[in-house]
Formats: sequence, C-alpha cells, structure tokens
Amino acid sequence: MQDSIAQLRARVRQFVEQHAIPSEEPSLAHDVQRLDAVVRRLQGVAREAGIYAPHLPPEYGGLGLDWQARAEILEEAGRSFLGAPALNCAPPDQPNMINLLRHGNAAQRERYLLPLVRGEIRSCFAMTEPAPGAGSDPSMLRTTAERQHGKWIINGHKWFISGAVDAAFAIVLARTDTGATMFIVDTSNPGYRLVRNIAGMDGYQVGGHGEIVFENCVVDDDAVLGEVGQGFAYAQARLEPARLSHCMRFIGRASRAMEIAQQYAAQRESFGQRLADLQQVQAMVADSHIDLHASRLMVRDCARKMDAGESVKHDSAMTKIFVSEAVWRVADRAVQIMGALGISDDTPVSMIQRELRPFRIYDGASELHRATLARRIFQYGLRP
Amino acid sequence: MQDSIAQLRARVRQFVEQHAIPSEEPSLAHDVQRLDAVVRRLQGVAREAGIYAPHLPPEYGGLGLDWQARAEILEEAGRSFLGAPALNCAPPDQPNMINLLRHGNAAQRERYLLPLVRGEIRSCFAMTEPAPGAGSDPSMLRTTAERQHGKWIINGHKWFISGAVDAAFAIVLARTDTGATMFIVDTSNPGYRLVRNIAGMDGYQVGGHGEIVFENCVVDDDAVLGEVGQGFAYAQARLEPARLSHCMRFIGRASRAMEIAQQYAAQRESFGQRLADLQQVQAMVADSHIDLHASRLMVRDCARKMDAGESVKHDSAMTKIFVSEAVWRVADRAVQIMGALGISDDTPVSMIQRELRPFRIYDGASELHRATLARRIFQYGLRP
Amino acid sequence: MQDSIAQLRARVRQFVEQHAIPSEEPSLAHDVQRLDAVVRRLQGVAREAGIYAPHLPPEYGGLGLDWQARAEILEEAGRSFLGAPALNCAPPDQPNMINLLRHGNAAQRERYLLPLVRGEIRSCFAMTEPAPGAGSDPSMLRTTAERQHGKWIINGHKWFISGAVDAAFAIVLARTDTGATMFIVDTSNPGYRLVRNIAGMDGYQVGGHGEIVFENCVVDDDAVLGEVGQGFAYAQARLEPARLSHCMRFIGRASRAMEIAQQYAAQRESFGQRLADLQQVQAMVADSHIDLHASRLMVRDCARKMDAGESVKHDSAMTKIFVSEAVWRVADRAVQIMGALGISDDTPVSMIQRELRPFRIYDGASELHRATLARRIFQYGLRP
Amino acid sequence: MQDSIAQLRARVRQFVEQHAIPSEEPSLAHDVQRLDAVVRRLQGVAREAGIYAPHLPPEYGGLGLDWQARAEILEEAGRSFLGAPALNCAPPDQPNMINLLRHGNAAQRERYLLPLVRGEIRSCFAMTEPAPGAGSDPSMLRTTAERQHGKWIINGHKWFISGAVDAAFAIVLARTDTGATMFIVDTSNPGYRLVRNIAGMDGYQVGGHGEIVFENCVVDDDAVLGEVGQGFAYAQARLEPARLSHCMRFIGRASRAMEIAQQYAAQRESFGQRLADLQQVQAMVADSHIDLHASRLMVRDCARKMDAGESVKHDSAMTKIFVSEAVWRVADRAVQIMGALGISDDTPVSMIQRELRPFRIYDGASELHRATLARRIFQYGLRP
Repeated sequence: MQDSIAQLRARVRQFVEQHAIPSEEPSLAHDVQRLDAVVRRLQGVAREAGIYAPHLPPEYGGLGLDWQARAEILEEAGRSFLGAPALNCAPPDQPNMINLLRHGNAAQRERYLLPLVRGEIRSCFAMTEPAPGAGSDPSMLRTTAERQHGKWIINGHKWFISGAVDAAFAIVLARTDTGATMFIVDTSNPGYRLVRNIAGMDGYQVGGHGEIVFENCVVDDDAVLGEVGQGFAYAQARLEPARLSHCMRFIGRASRAMEIAQQYAAQRESFGQRLADLQQVQAMVADSHIDLHASRLMVRDCARKMDAGESVKHDSAMTKIFVSEAVWRVADRAVQIMGALGISDDTPVSMIQRELRPFRIYDGASELHRATLARRIFQYGLRP
Repeated sequence: MQDSIAQLRARVRQFVEQHAIPSEEPSLAHDVQRLDAVVRRLQGVAREAGIYAPHLPPEYGGLGLDWQARAEILEEAGRSFLGAPALNCAPPDQPNMINLLRHGNAAQRERYLLPLVRGEIRSCFAMTEPAPGAGSDPSMLRTTAERQHGKWIINGHKWFISGAVDAAFAIVLARTDTGATMFIVDTSNPGYRLVRNIAGMDGYQVGGHGEIVFENCVVDDDAVLGEVGQGFAYAQARLEPARLSHCMRFIGRASRAMEIAQQYAAQRESFGQRLADLQQVQAMVADSHIDLHASRLMVRDCARKMDAGESVKHDSAMTKIFVSEAVWRVADRAVQIMGALGISDDTPVSMIQRELRPFRIYDGASELHRATLARRIFQYGLRP
Repeated sequence: MQDSIAQLRARVRQFVEQHAIPSEEPSLAHDVQRLDAVVRRLQGVAREAGIYAPHLPPEYGGLGLDWQARAEILEEAGRSFLGAPALNCAPPDQPNMINLLRHGNAAQRERYLLPLVRGEIRSCFAMTEPAPGAGSDPSMLRTTAERQHGKWIINGHKWFISGAVDAAFAIVLARTDTGATMFIVDTSNPGYRLVRNIAGMDGYQVGGHGEIVFENCVVDDDAVLGEVGQGFAYAQARLEPARLSHCMRFIGRASRAMEIAQQYAAQRESFGQRLADLQQVQAMVADSHIDLHASRLMVRDCARKMDAGESVKHDSAMTKIFVSEAVWRVADRAVQIMGALGISDDTPVSMIQRELRPFRIYDGASELHRATLARRIFQYGLRP
Repeated sequence: MQDSIAQLRARVRQFVEQHAIPSEEPSLAHDVQRLDAVVRRLQGVAREAGIYAPHLPPEYGGLGLDWQARAEILEEAGRSFLGAPALNCAPPDQPNMINLLRHGNAAQRERYLLPLVRGEIRSCFAMTEPAPGAGSDPSMLRTTAERQHGKWIINGHKWFISGAVDAAFAIVLARTDTGATMFIVDTSNPGYRLVRNIAGMDGYQVGGHGEIVFENCVVDDDAVLGEVGQGFAYAQARLEPARLSHCMRFIGRASRAMEIAQQYAAQRESFGQRLADLQQVQAMVADSHIDLHASRLMVRDCARKMDAGESVKHDSAMTKIFVSEAVWRVADRAVQIMGALGISDDTPVSMIQRELRPFRIYDGASELHRATLARRIFQYGLRP
C-alpha cells in the first residue's frame, strides 16, 4: 500500500508538472469563465491518468484513499493552483460531495452527486452572511426557511460563497423552526439570485466568491439535505475535514513557492555572493523547511487519528492555526528572497502569497480558534 | 508656520476625503491608461486647492515645504492610493524632479522639468536590471553607454521600472568609461523600447512597472544629466529622500487601513460581543497604534535632521527597515480584523496590504539594509 | 543648556565607567545587605561628582533636570545596575520622593523626605497584594485602614514590595471609608512585619522584594499622605513618570548589553569568520539598534510632552509596552550573540536579561496596557 | 509494549510528583554539593521504583527503551529539574555512558561505565574552549595531546564543562597528530585542575559548569577512548541523540511551567474576570499547546527514524531549532501569565525560563543550525 501511494503520488506530481503548472497563467485569476474551462480540460487528463477524485469511494469513480494517503496526494496536487480542481478534490465541491454522500438520499445522490463527481456541474456552499448575519459565529444565522403549504420559503443574504459563479446548485444553511437546516437549491430557481462575484486577493478560486440573495425562494421537501434541524451539526462535521484538506493543499502551495525561491537563490548573485550563501537568506530557507516539516507532521497526525476514527476536534484546530500561519510565513519569505521578481506575476510566488492570506481567516479565523482552544483547555483541564 | 502646516494638512485631508478616495476603484489597479486619466483630473483639483507639489520650490509652482512639513502632508496624502500622484509628489516623478532640479542644466529643466512639474508628462527612472545585472547591488550594472563619434550609444535591459508605461522620458543609469552616468532619454527615441508592463501585487502605480530594452539607443551630450561618471553618487543621493517619502506615504496608507478596521470592529458583533471588545482584536489595534507612533517618530526625526542639513544615511536605513515592516504588520492586522471582508476588494484594505508588500523590497530590501547597518556599526564602533 | 546636559551626561558616563561598573559583581545580586552598603558608598562619590539626585529640585540638593534631560541622564546611569541607585534616582525611593514632594506636609518632608534625599534611609511603596487582592487591578485592594478612637488601624497583606528589606518607612495604600488612602508607616511600627524577602529573577533591587503583613498597625492622622481618599489618584499619578523613568534606565541597560555583545562579535571568530561578519549576527545587531532608536524617540517624545505639561497617559502606555518588549529583545540577542559566555555571570549580559524580564509585568503588564489602550482608542475614536 | 510504556510513564509521573518535585527548592540552584546529595538520594528511590536508567540496556541495569519510549519517559521525568538526574539519564553522564558503551574497551567499561551507571560517580565531557579555541566550531580545537615516551601529554583550557564539579573523570577532546582524539582522564590526575564553577542563568545542573585546565597532564594509552583520530566523529555521533534527549526533557519542563500557569489563570481574577477568560491569556495558552504539540511530533518523528536506523542529521537539527525556541516561548508565556509571581522563586516557573535560555545556544546555537541546514538544502537541492 505504502508503495502504491508513493507511485500514485509520483503520478500526481507528473500530472502537476506536465499539465497543471503549464496551464497556469496570471490572467486566469479573476477570469472565472476561462478558469472553469481550463479546469474542465484538466479533469479529463486527470481521469485518464487515474488520479481523479482521490477522496471518493471507488464506486463513485474515486481512488478511495484514506486520510493519510490523501495528505500526500492533496499536498502534491496543491503545488499548482489548478491541481486540486483538476482532481476534483477542491472546495467547495469536495466537502459538498462528502455532505451528499453522508446525508443525501438516493434521489439527491443521483441528481446532484453523480454529475458533480463527473465534473459536469459545480456547486457552492452558502453559509456565510454579511453583518449582522452569520460570520465566524454561525448562531447569528439570519437566512430563514419558512414552512408554508408544504413548501419551504427561503429568504436571506449570503456572501463570500466560494464557487458560486456558474454553480448548478447550492447547499444552503437556513434557520428553520427546529434549528438550522441544509437545503439543496438549484441555482436556476427563480428565488435564487447571484448578485455578483466578489473580487479580492485570491484569484484562482473556481467559480469565484459570490454574493447571493434568496428572495422567496421556494423549494420542496426533497430539497432538505439529511434531517431538518441538523444543519449546524452537518456544517460542523464538514468543517474539520475541510480545513485539514485545505492544510494539505496549501502545504503544497507554500512548498512550491519556496522551491522556486531556492532555485532563484541558488543562482542569483549580489555583492559577489550567491543569495544562497547569505546567512539571512539561509535562515529564511531553514525556517521554511522547519515550518513545513512541522506542518506536515501535524496534518499527518490528524490524518492518522481520523483514519482510526478518533476525534480531531482539538488537534485539527491546533493544526489549522499553525499551518495557516506557517504557510503564510513560508510564502512571505519566498517573495522576500526573490525580490522584485517575487512581487511580480512572472512567477507564481506572488499569487501564492496572495492566495494564502485568506487561509488565516477562512474555516475559522486564527483568533477564534485560539479562544476556542483555550476555553476547551480550561474547561477540561487539558495538560499542555 | 506650525499653524499654517496644520491648515495645509487639513486642506489635504479634505481633498483626500472628497476627491481622491471617491475616485478610487479596484478596477483602476492594473489599468494604467484609466489610472493616468484619473490622476491627471485630480491634479487639476489639487492645484486649485493650493496643495499641489508640496516638495517643489515656489518658483516651480510648489509649496516649498521643508522635510518636517512634508512628513505631515505626504502622510495625509498617502491615505489614498491616488493622493500623492494627485499632488504630483509620487515616485518616480517626485525624485526625478529633484534630480533634475539639482543636476539638470537650464535646457533640461526647460524641456523636462517644467512639463513634469505641470503634470503634462510623466517619467521613469531606469536603474534596475534583470539578473545578472543591477538589482540590490548597483555595481552589477550592465547597461552601457559607449562614446562613438561624439554621441552616446546606450545598450541594456531594464525591468521593474515604475511609471514606464506612457512615460515621456526616462532617466537612465548606464555604465560609462569613468563610472556610471545618468542620461535623459526620450521614450520616443527609436533605440528605446518598452517591452511590456510587468503585472504583480501592487496595482496603483501610475505608469505600471515596465520592462525596457535599449538597443543602440543614440543620444547626444545634452542627454547627460549632471556630470559623466557621477551616476552612482546621484542615485545614492536620491535614494534617502525617496525612501523617507515612501515611509511618509505608506504610514498614511496603513493608518487608513487600520482606521477602516477600527470602524468595522466597533460595529461588527460576533458571539454576543463587538469585535472591539475582544482582547485579541484590542491587542491588534493597540499594536498598530504603537507601530505607527514609532514609525512617525522615526520619520520625523530624520526629517528634522535633513532640514538641519545633517546626514541621515544611518538613520534613514533604520527608519526604512522599521517602517516598511511596521506598516506591513498594520495592514495585515487590518485585514485580519475585517475577516472575509478584509480579503475582498469591497474595501481598500485588501489592496493596501498588497501594495505595502513590495516596500520591504523596493528601495533596498530589509536584509540588505540590516547587513549594511551592521557593517557600519562594526566599522565605526557605533554604540547601540 | 544643551551643552551643559551633554557635559553632565559625560560626567555620569565617567562615573558609571569608573565607579559603578567596577563595583558590580554577581554575588551582590540577592545579597541585600552588601548591595546596600555598596550603593551607599557610591552615593557619596556621586554627590561629590555633582551628579546626585537629577530628579530633585536644587533646593533639595538635586540637579533640577526637566524630563528631557532626565531621559539622557537616567539612560546613562542605567547602563550599570548600580548607576541609578548611586544617583538616588532608583525606584521605589525616586517615586516616593516625588510623592512626598507633591503631597507631603512640612513635617513629613522634614522627617521622611530629607533623610531619603540624603540617602540616609530607604523606603518602599506597599501597594501590590497576593490574590485575591490588588494586583494589576488596584480596585481589588483588600488592605484596610479603619478609623478608631482618632487613630487608623491598618490590616493587610502585601508582597513584591520592592526595597522593603531594611526600609525605614513604607508608603502604604489602604482602603478607607472614602476610597483608598496613602499612609506613611515606619517599619519600626510594631504592627508592621516584614515576612521575608522574595527571591526571583532580578537580583540587583536595593532592598529586594518584600512580603509584608500589617497586623493592627496603628498610626496617627499625621501618617496620612496628602488627602484621605485620594490614594488611587496619587498612585496613578506616580505611575506614569515611574514607568517612563524605568524605560530610560532600562534603555541604558539594554544598550550596555548589546555594546558588550558587539565587542565580543568584533573579536570572536568561528568557522574562519568574525561573528561580526555573519549576517545572522549582523541582523541581530541592526535590529537592536533599531529597537533602541525607536525606544529613545518614544521616551523623548513623552519627556517633551511632560515638560510642556501635556498629558502622556496614552503615549506613556504605548511607550511602556514598546520599550519593555524592545529592551527584552535586545538583551536576548546580546545573550545569543555571546553564546555560552552570554549565559554565564562572567559578563553582566546574563543578569541584564534576567533583570529586564519583570519589566513586561511591573508597572502594568503589556496585556493590560494593550487592552486599556484599545478601549481608549475605541471610546474616543482615536485615529491610528 | 505500548501498554507497558504507558504504565512505565505513569510510574515515572508518580515518582516525579511524589519525590522529585517535593525535593526541588530554589536554594539548590548553584549549590552543587547539596544538589548532588539530593540527586543521589532520589536515584535510590528511582531504582527501587524500577524506573532507573531508561536509556541503558538491561544488562547494565537499565530499562532498554527504544527512542520512541524514551521520548515519553524523558519528557515525563523532565517535568522536574531533578527528574532526569534521578533516573541517571541527564547529561553529561547520559551521553558519556553511551560513548563508553559504544567505544570503551572492557577495562574502561569496568572502571568508568559501571560505577557511573550505578550512580556512584559522576563525569563530564570536556570539549568547549574559551576563545580563540573550540566553541561552535570544533575545528578550532586547541587542546593538544602529544605523544612522548609512550605516554600522552595533554595541555589545554576548557570551560562551560557541565558536571565538572566533583566529577570523577572527564572525557576530553584533544588534538592529536591524526585528528582529534577522546581521552578518559581521572580528575585526580595531577595535570588536571578544576579552576572554578562558572555561575550563570541555569542553576540546576548537577556538577555545575566548570572551567578546567590541563597542564602537562600525563595519561597512558589505556586512556584513549575508541580509536586515535576519531574524536570529532565520536563527538558528532553523541550530539544528535544528546540534543534530542534535551528536547524531550525540556518539553517536559515547559509543559510543567504552562500547567502551573494554567492553574493560576483558572483561579486568579482581575477586573472582574478570571485570567482564563481573557483572550490575551487564552491566546498565550493556545499557542503554548500548539508549540508543545508540534515539538512532540517533531521529536517523536526523529525517535521513530532513529529506532528504524535512519539518519536524523537533518531532522534532528530542524527539531532542535524548533523545540529550543518553542519551549522558550512557552516558558516566557507562563511567566507572563503569572505576573509578579512568575518572576519570583515562589514557583518553579521563573527558574524554568532561566534554565531554558541556554538551550538555544548549547548543542549548537540556532543560528549555526540554520546556516548548516540551509547549506545542506542548497547542496543537495532538498525540496522544502
């Protein structure tokens, strides 16, 4: 098994080097249509290469990898902006697939999961709301789904909904009588409106980041995903694996940035010395290796526990804080080592730094996780 | 005098609030033509408001401010991406004007300085070269100017030349027999070619960042700026005031980012509390005030010394390191406080962080300045 | 005046080099009796050198310096552990003198201030209490002074009372009917008991850090310092100058540590290079110069404002946070540069690091100041 | 096996709680004689508890643990200053035992190893020299061993030799014709002189830190440990396990400091809130858990590789840098959370911070390791 994972990883690396990276270009960032087309093309190549959908069970055409194997594959794919989307294991589709697998009924799987798995459609997950709605604090959820005449009427306002542009459906979190509930809403529903794509720092998100309005959006009972009232629980359950998957992909991204910086430092001379021979550069390189080594060990430790069925509530929070900050430091050092070239779009390093910035905010801001960790520590008297 | 500086500053603030900030829009970034037009329009407003060209002597239509007054005005203007360009005190035109004032002969002033002052044309400063040419280390300069038949033939390759797109002329640093020399080259010269605009993190640079090639570019003796062989000395002399001016402007930019973040934190609630009431947010706000307070004191101390004719070689290097890193921290905290909104282009905070990133590299990377500072400390036994 | 301050500073430096530093020895730390004797001897030398009591008005035998001048003198004296005590401008005697000058009546000045000024006796300031009493939060004050039969009966428990060992009197903060009140208590009072000297990291505190118990300690009305009920106000008023004075002295201490480290780095070779030629050492040296430069500017800015009668409530808090953390970084780097020698007592560097550790806690912990600063910022909408 | 390690660890914890910690007292620090006596007594208790010498093979009376098990036991023992010495697995005796086991001949094992194992004698490792001798750079070794008339004549000067006071023998690194060689020298040898114990920050080192002079110190061939000329190789080989063992012990120490700080924060109130409820304290606690979690994972990963016979040259350097800096941060936060109490000797937290300071210097300073790591990275093109 270990061998075959190593082989699989080598195939992913080959795919990334030969297909994903050559397809990257700065102008794809923020151009959702072209980005979409490029990813669709790459998915075909990945399927043929036998590396498609590492997170899905074989009966759904996936590789059926456990978390420890995924840690390797997602890191490798994550070296390119286009790697994880090409393998169809990028958010929000990846966690949406997992939600549908776990909670979707047969009809929902047929209608939504299968085309999603095949890469024919895309989806989004509509949870975050503008102030004073649900941001870090999901309990502030203001989008409602009211029961009327055997239907559900959804009203609300969502934003920063990754993947929303050209998505075929959204999994929507809305407040119902008995708690929050997840609904699957077709974006062709007349009550669903994509207001705009919100531009910002990170450009390579397939489907951008949408602002969405639900205005008397009517859906039937078969739009309910899983059980009514279980929305928060399902959302929580998707978060841990989602943030760990992010860690895996972004370790790959940061590693690539530093790899490029190392190659630059090994050649570029200044004041009669290679940059690689300057101690301040050496310290930045050494610290980046340490940051990534610690990041990988934390991720793998979580993966091992998840594979063993242990809870990683606490550990995944520690891991998310550390990794999101570590990969940021690594990318920042890569930019610094490369000087003006690092700022430019002539290499992907500049975009990698921009793309890593949101990770300290998405999936729970570092500050929120720190406070939550500490409260749990004090509540249960956890030893340091 | 102090009063009138305060009044002037108030006028600049009013201009920034009423004209510069309302003219900002994310789509201006990387759109050099539209940006140029907007800036030109604003320059007219600024001229009427009596706040134009604070760094120029009155006989050139400027405000004739000393460095201490400039510190205030440039910070205030720097709150907007468009403020300093609107006052025509943004690089590279600002230091180019100073170079022309100091070293230009009457004809050069007439032909280049006056239209530059009036905002009719723009310029660039062509020093930096791709590897293995002059980057941090100017002694690696590879662009040459050869003497042939009473003319100078310039050949070379430059990049990251801010303001190059649509510039009317470039001040070019080239290697000559007796050292480096500065030449004024019309961009209409057939030997001058703008290869491209180099895109990257920071988008609000008027005229972008150009890559330029000089191919047998022939100029006459009257193209020499100042004396032959004095190029490095002139370049060095322009660097200190240039980097201090950058500090002033960027203090303004970081201050604005944190101002926006404070306003957000004062209103946005999460888990039943305003963000402003959370200690982790409070610590970020307090640290930002401290960072900016220390930055201002360091800049003003340099300004005072420059006004008194003292050397600030050492102090300006310390100031540049500290301020470039401090304003970056401030912008990063502003983004973090604002969460997803901070990442987006819905507020200028996200672009401010991106725009501040190069400052740790431009005008001498932090690592270079640290090494130089320490060597001077050990050479002269400077007390800590 | 500027000249004479420079001359005075030179005299202080000479005194520190010739008398204070040669009297330092590690064994003095934690040996309160010998330390006391050494300081008393040095005070005689300082008096003859005309540098004694820089903070006192001339009519009390002091130099009558304003805050800007004190900033220079206290930094210079602060280079040695023994400098400020030798000039009798070390806490707690220094702020106690200021309290007595401001609030003491004629008899109190005669009895307590004059011998204190002459260095014949020492004193302490008894405010801090063990949990659940007054620590960071003075409102938790539990020591009481009850009015009975025209007397005051003080009961309470204090600790970390610097200078308590062999002090002749204590200024005590106790809760009375109408608020907190300051009392002057002779340590010979039978109700006053020094429980022990509390050992810890910093060893050079004259009079150590005492734990004190007040058991039915009876004092007369003439023990009240200033007005009844004004204790908190007086305590607050003494804090700002006290913490700024600390900043001044500790800038001197950190500067000396780095001076020693620089001298070491300039000579010690490793792997064929002087330490001074290694970039990682250079970066530590440069950062220390920057830290100290910014620290001095912040302190001097406060001093200037205090001399002008402006409030420094906000600025002194920013300064205290920054300086206490900056000098700690400087000392830590000095230790690191010196390697094993930096850990040892063979140079004062090791003790300087230990002595600087409490400064992030004393006079208000950094965390407390950050929260207070931010609350004020949000309350008054202070611009960053 | 896993179970029995858990049981063993529980026994060690019980021993530490019931015997080691109650024997700690600040006055032991720097009092080498009393410290020695206390440790000897505790070794008896540990032997009876069946937890003695975890690193030694059973045939030498040890527990024969592999590295992964040692990681657990040494951390647990390391919670007390006295834990590792009580288990006789503290440096320099622990690595000396390993050197003797590996390279000692039968007679040397009989004469030196056995009494060392039994705790009857102590030893030291004499490598470090004052400038301009061997510090970080062993190639600067100046101590010589000359061959004369079939004997070796050792001359040289050593310092910071941990454990030197009252050691029975020293393993000495000296320069010989064919490279460096290790010698076993009885401290009763008339050519061996302990000059003094060097006091400094860390006080709990059994046998202190000695300065030693070798003056025409004559030894026979049977004093050579292993082979002539292999001294540097042996020294290098002992360093990796030694620094990892240090990591294990110091993780325990830092964990205990934070445990104490957590207990304090859970009870102490300030401004109407428990410290544990303040976000700045929460952030310090969370970061400490993260630091220790990452530290443990890095150490265990090395341990696993060592057990598998893999080289950890690179990984152990990354681990040493990270752990030495992480445990320092943890201890510093523990002090900060506890305020004045954290500075004092009333809890072990203050001494733990002081004791951890040298770890960023001993076993190779962080700066040295960073430069070495980076050079290896560039040399072999290691991917980040």
